[in-house]
Amino acid sequence: MTATDDTAGSGEDRLIARHFAPLATHPGALGLADDVAVMTPPAGCDLVLETDAIVAGMHFFADDPPAGIARKALRINLSDLAAKGARPLGFLLTLALPRRAAEPPVDDAWLAAFAGALGEDAQAYGCPLYGGDTVASPGPVMISVTVIGAVPTGTLVRRGGARPGDRVVVTGTIGDAALGLVLRLERAAAGDFGLSEDERAHLLSRYREPRPRTALAEAVRLHATAAMDVSDGLAGDLAKLCRVSGVTARVDIARVPLSGAAHRLLDAAPEHLAAVLSGGDDYEILCTVPPDRLAPFLAAASAAGVAAAEIGEILAGQGAPALVGPDGHPVALDRASFSHF
Amino acid sequence: MTATDDTAGSGEDRLIARHFAPLATHPGALGLADDVAVMTPPAGCDLVLETDAIVAGMHFFADDPPAGIARKALRINLSDLAAKGARPLGFLLTLALPRRAAEPPVDDAWLAAFAGALGEDAQAYGCPLYGGDTVASPGPVMISVTVIGAVPTGTLVRRGGARPGDRVVVTGTIGDAALGLVLRLERAAAGDFGLSEDERAHLLSRYREPRPRTALAEAVRLHATAAMDVSDGLAGDLAKLCRVSGVTARVDIARVPLSGAAHRLLDAAPEHLAAVLSGGDDYEILCTVPPDRLAPFLAAASAAGVAAAEIGEILAGQGAPALVGPDGHPVALDRASFSHF
Repeated sequence: MTATDDTAGSGEDRLIARHFAPLATHPGALGLADDVAVMTPPAGCDLVLETDAIVAGMHFFADDPPAGIARKALRINLSDLAAKGARPLGFLLTLALPRRAAEPPVDDAWLAAFAGALGEDAQAYGCPLYGGDTVASPGPVMISVTVIGAVPTGTLVRRGGARPGDRVVVTGTIGDAALGLVLRLERAAAGDFGLSEDERAHLLSRYREPRPRTALAEAVRLHATAAMDVSDGLAGDLAKLCRVSGVTARVDIARVPLSGAAHRLLDAAPEHLAAVLSGGDDYEILCTVPPDRLAPFLAAASAAGVAAAEIGEILAGQGAPALVGPDGHPVALDRASFSHF
Repeated sequence: MTATDDTAGSGEDRLIARHFAPLATHPGALGLADDVAVMTPPAGCDLVLETDAIVAGMHFFADDPPAGIARKALRINLSDLAAKGARPLGFLLTLALPRRAAEPPVDDAWLAAFAGALGEDAQAYGCPLYGGDTVASPGPVMISVTVIGAVPTGTLVRRGGARPGDRVVVTGTIGDAALGLVLRLERAAAGDFGLSEDERAHLLSRYREPRPRTALAEAVRLHATAAMDVSDGLAGDLAKLCRVSGVTARVDIARVPLSGAAHRLLDAAPEHLAAVLSGGDDYEILCTVPPDRLAPFLAAASAAGVAAAEIGEILAGQGAPALVGPDGHPVALDRASFSHF
């Protein structure tokens, strides 16, 4: 991604100069006027690398507001860093834009809203744009973001460190995004499922715009034995964590933290409990914390203003974690995790 | 991009486990079994960051051999690192795959050939896979690669360092890839343009498979005042370098190094000279070298087995570089550079 201030440049050059060069406030981005970017790695740190992509028609709706699409593209990556205890250093962006007329049009106004929101998030999360590539495509809008983060050398929190006796902890509330998608797909209005306008807006916004738990990264790094973000559904992601750690787990469904809106929707339509437990896009932190670290972890979460709840325990053994209902019996889910394939 | 060895995983998990986990030989990739990768930055170095994407139907043909597509996706990024004097440390991959049946099918055989060639190149260029993301898309195959490289702190060769009197140097031969694309688009057979089968194959292979000049990265770093790779056409890329450096240049067209095949084709069809000078996809190094550094630069290139040729001189002033023909008059090009927009 390179920009020129010369209108004789290509369309790509002009697009970058107009919309993305203003985001390149970090000196390492070289003003997007060179072929590469340069980053001085912080001393005593490991780099933490992550790439996540989203595609119109798969991960968002083509007519979603471009500002929200930009936020989602960056924040799903920031969520991964936070869940691994890392702080962000910067990101690179690949943006594929429809070559032909699209509906809605991906025009100057769309790009201005997209880049504006991306710049605001880059500033808010301390994760500056370093560079990228803009390509025309015969296909839909696609955004791939690579974030680079840092942890003190040797302190990355892995998936595989969970041990029997560790407590299973999640941040925030679970299932809001999956229920937001239900509302979106069913074109549910306020009043449907007994939801107020605010509750409906809450669920939809949780689907559209993840809130990475960056403020909790240090607490994860200091206290968790294993961690990941919940992006493909709580049940499936916990199963993955357990598999890599060589353990299993028991989760009390009644302790899984739900928003008021999710409670209201489930009261009206309890069949959506499966979406809550196995739907995607939560972007909360799922981690395992030894019993003697639980109090300091929860205190750190509270100090950071992020809710955190103990929902179960790691157990010796193999196999999918048991999700135990209020009656003491495990609940079976048709699928534990979301997959686009 | 995470892999599991469990067939109960999602389709994406299985795809990654089968095709990409075998490439994750570097310990920092964590076997593609975690959410992120970890890289220990080399001491005393700046990181050099670059992202380049290619899309079927735009940057390659959907029915190109998958091994060649993989090589192109990685090598265009390695070419950027080499041209900036950087050595590769590793890369991340975003792969968007058609959700529906495609022609040719993007099936297991396609993925095996793609991943196999990618793994060979990763090994050959010392640039291991650290991670990535695989997404389904309603659109065509798209591949975005982010490479991370390194230079000793403060030694990145920028675009903006060219000074009047510096010699303009290019590696290898120019125009082969653009002429290969001409052959591909015109479905030219051996014999057309008077080309032998070998000459035709040479031009086509130069279009399909860039050869990054990694062996010359150190010489660029030690001797060049400005450098970039020729990806959008020699004339346009030199114009960009001059603009950022605040200078102009004169290039003798007769000194621009051409392959035997390019000479033969131009003899038969001189109208394709414009494609040679302004076509894309050369992936050679374009750099400026002070007169007193030219001999050691050329000696280093020779020692590395890479051809390098002085083709002109940086001049004080502004404006597009003059491309001077054998008659001493500047040649005008309809467009100096290739753009997809």
